[in-house]
Amino acid sequence: MITGKNLVAGNWEHSESSAVFQTVNPKTKTALGINHQEATTIQIETAVQAAASSFEVFAESSFEDRAIFLKTIQEELQQQKSEILSSYQEESALPEGRAEGEFQRTISQIQSFIELMDNGSFSEVKIHTQGPDLRKMNFPLGPIVVFGASNFPLAFSTAGGDTISAFAAGCPVIVKAHPFHAATSELVAQAIAKAVAKCRLPLGIFSHLGGQSHDVGGQLVSHPLIKGVGFTGSYSGGKALYDLAQKREEPIPVFAEMGSINPVFILENKLKSDYSLAESLAQSITLGTGQFCTNPGLIVICDPSGAHDLAVEISKHTASMNIPPMVHDSIQNKYDKQIVDFKSSGLLKSMHHSSTCSAVIGSVGAQDFLNNKNLSEEVFGPFTLVVNCNSADQMLAVASALEGQLTVSILGDPSDKGIAKVLLSKLRTKAGRILFEGVPTGVAVTDAMQHGGPFPASSDSRFTSVGTDAIYRWLRPVAYQDCPDNLLPDALKNKNPLGLQRNVNGKITGSEI
Amino acid sequence: MITGKNLVAGNWEHSESSAVFQTVNPKTKTALGINHQEATTIQIETAVQAAASSFEVFAESSFEDRAIFLKTIQEELQQQKSEILSSYQEESALPEGRAEGEFQRTISQIQSFIELMDNGSFSEVKIHTQGPDLRKMNFPLGPIVVFGASNFPLAFSTAGGDTISAFAAGCPVIVKAHPFHAATSELVAQAIAKAVAKCRLPLGIFSHLGGQSHDVGGQLVSHPLIKGVGFTGSYSGGKALYDLAQKREEPIPVFAEMGSINPVFILENKLKSDYSLAESLAQSITLGTGQFCTNPGLIVICDPSGAHDLAVEISKHTASMNIPPMVHDSIQNKYDKQIVDFKSSGLLKSMHHSSTCSAVIGSVGAQDFLNNKNLSEEVFGPFTLVVNCNSADQMLAVASALEGQLTVSILGDPSDKGIAKVLLSKLRTKAGRILFEGVPTGVAVTDAMQHGGPFPASSDSRFTSVGTDAIYRWLRPVAYQDCPDNLLPDALKNKNPLGLQRNVNGKITGSEI
Repeated sequence: MITGKNLVAGNWEHSESSAVFQTVNPKTKTALGINHQEATTIQIETAVQAAASSFEVFAESSFEDRAIFLKTIQEELQQQKSEILSSYQEESALPEGRAEGEFQRTISQIQSFIELMDNGSFSEVKIHTQGPDLRKMNFPLGPIVVFGASNFPLAFSTAGGDTISAFAAGCPVIVKAHPFHAATSELVAQAIAKAVAKCRLPLGIFSHLGGQSHDVGGQLVSHPLIKGVGFTGSYSGGKALYDLAQKREEPIPVFAEMGSINPVFILENKLKSDYSLAESLAQSITLGTGQFCTNPGLIVICDPSGAHDLAVEISKHTASMNIPPMVHDSIQNKYDKQIVDFKSSGLLKSMHHSSTCSAVIGSVGAQDFLNNKNLSEEVFGPFTLVVNCNSADQMLAVASALEGQLTVSILGDPSDKGIAKVLLSKLRTKAGRILFEGVPTGVAVTDAMQHGGPFPASSDSRFTSVGTDAIYRWLRPVAYQDCPDNLLPDALKNKNPLGLQRNVNGKITGSEI
Repeated sequence: MITGKNLVAGNWEHSESSAVFQTVNPKTKTALGINHQEATTIQIETAVQAAASSFEVFAESSFEDRAIFLKTIQEELQQQKSEILSSYQEESALPEGRAEGEFQRTISQIQSFIELMDNGSFSEVKIHTQGPDLRKMNFPLGPIVVFGASNFPLAFSTAGGDTISAFAAGCPVIVKAHPFHAATSELVAQAIAKAVAKCRLPLGIFSHLGGQSHDVGGQLVSHPLIKGVGFTGSYSGGKALYDLAQKREEPIPVFAEMGSINPVFILENKLKSDYSLAESLAQSITLGTGQFCTNPGLIVICDPSGAHDLAVEISKHTASMNIPPMVHDSIQNKYDKQIVDFKSSGLLKSMHHSSTCSAVIGSVGAQDFLNNKNLSEEVFGPFTLVVNCNSADQMLAVASALEGQLTVSILGDPSDKGIAKVLLSKLRTKAGRILFEGVPTGVAVTDAMQHGGPFPASSDSRFTSVGTDAIYRWLRPVAYQDCPDNLLPDALKNKNPLGLQRNVNGKITGSEI
């Protein structure tokens, strides 16, 4: 049942004095009837204090206990699955298949962290017994604030990668629910709260606070007892939180994944020979109504002959598509306005849309693109801009002018190898992930994934927000020098009771010392 | 030969218009005669542009080439050793043994990075061939600015851990020389410049700029093409650079190691039974005239009987010591002023000094310490404050009140185990390194070292500035998805031509794919 209340360290609190707001079905534009309460200053303070005072205990929980906790979260989510999915579809307008897919992604994402707990590699044990006996491993940072993302109500929200990786690290989490899917978020929070109670963990390790204004998030990020922040969303939102965190007496890390135009470079011979390009790009551009942070917003083609009108070819596919509205009116309005601005700029060669589909495909000459920096701004939604280059050099110039990106793609034929290599050298300094086949919209949850790129794609390119390496955002190393064995954490003990693979005097080994 | 010029991407430039300054022998207070030129805005711009344009080439240098470069730096330093050591002693007043020791530390520090290049573990290869083929490894961040530290003219300055770890990562470096040892810094820069030329590396990968004002450093940190900063020094200096870097349009990481009071907790039975404590603490407090970031500035003892006057015992040892002046008048004056302030605060139970030695040992009751936050401020120099606790609980209260530290020490007898465990839980959240024997002033250069702790000890507790893991400050991961083998970097190729230990589908292996 959806209550509209805030979860404060285990208690679902009703507050008479709170401002309230409702979520809206983006298809029908009707409010959904539940009054969601904005968290009060006292609730925020109580949640943070409880998170801080539960930290020492949770930090010392065994990896096994954390795995059981994550498993219990999975089970509780499964219990509430049908209610969660129906709320998800009402609040986001995203179709059933996507809801189901995102639910499964959330569950399997949790599974990957359960397996990580079993293998323990994230503790990164380094032991050096020559000279002073030094033993280093990673420990949790402290209480973390996680912001739900508007575009992924499950996989990047309440029980998404940020929350789960922080729990896996041993950090208490306070979720600031995204106001566009407050009901879905509450249902997921109920599942987590049940898991906390079932596992008899300190109740302070999880709170779930709502709010439509920026006040709740701002107070949380500014609180001296908070030690880190996870965020996925717009540049303006992420940068504002980042700046707030840097103005604190003690600055803290903010991992803001702020989006990207994910340029796709199509080399000359590939463009000539691959007739399926337009269709696969059309699919990628419109996936989730273009609301993916890896949406291909820029397609740079090398077409010296000028024979290819890729924008037209893509728009032939998008024109007849039937895609749902964006997850919220305010996002849709921003998208519509940016499209109007692009059109009225007079810089584009052409712009293609249809009366039945919100996807828009623009086309511009490379020189015009290079002369107008605002053409490389992200248009969040089902839009892409095709940049037509008349030479490989012009393509390199476009590559050089790019800001930091989550992904770049280089689609080439084997005969394009020469230019691919030069382009790759350049693009490697611009992105977190480089694709050579397919489209950037799939983000696999593995330990080899990098989701995060040079600023402004994310606030810290050294970390990923997808895949098990996301845990490193919430850890810091501590070295024990000449510590008696009985005072060492299990991971560092001579007998290696956890059976970890450890780096001992420079060699990786599972043996005792 | 010392010229006073700035090194701008391979050229030792003389500038008529530059402001000049001289370094001073702290013992004789005489200026050393060489006019050191402050770098001009044009020189700064040229150095940064050259660093940025050499980045792509240097980033693609093989690990082997970087090892040869580091080895050549070692050789060139050895060539200039006698000149460097004599300049070092003139500019710092530190004795010959220390000069020799710090030179050796610098050489062996470089050696550890040469070995790291050979083993390649820092590239942290993760390959996942199921689903999309994803291959991730670390790449250099970009041009780095390194600030020389006043208290370590060699090991934490021009060819110190920051510079060498950045070179090892594949990043160009611009050193902002510390004005207190500008001549020593120039000699070391000459050695590095010769190594760059001998190895035929792009000259832009190293510049060495001087300046007495904050302008040179400020301009460097604010330059959009700079991607990271390394600093060891005071809180005020480090925090100012940090803030400057966060105010940029693109914020960049600043690794500021800002010092610490390195509390030493001596448990009840240890205090009663170990008669050598006072002497070893006296040695640690006065080492390098107290100018170590790991100097024990706070000693917390559990003495319910009130029978021990540890401050008196330590001062018996320090009183007769003959220690040199601090490395610069301005540091000495700040130290002297802080001592006067402590004395006039009227809060201390006692303060011990001698007419022949600048070491000062203070003593205060735990409650007074807890009531006066300013007593826990760092006094940089040969000073320590003994905090007398009448119970284990009072000791825990002192532990809880501490800010972030580089190190904490828990010195206990086996019979102190109970309280040691409780104290450890608390202190683990406060420090980067925890010692159980000896004194904190030794910082071993191994992969298990952690030199860096929670704010304000350092600006980013997730990284270390000593030991081979210091390289991770200058790296970020990039994932290649479905990349043809011939376009992959060697570390990621199927055949594993570098013979690295790689994580392939979750298993560590040296095999091909």
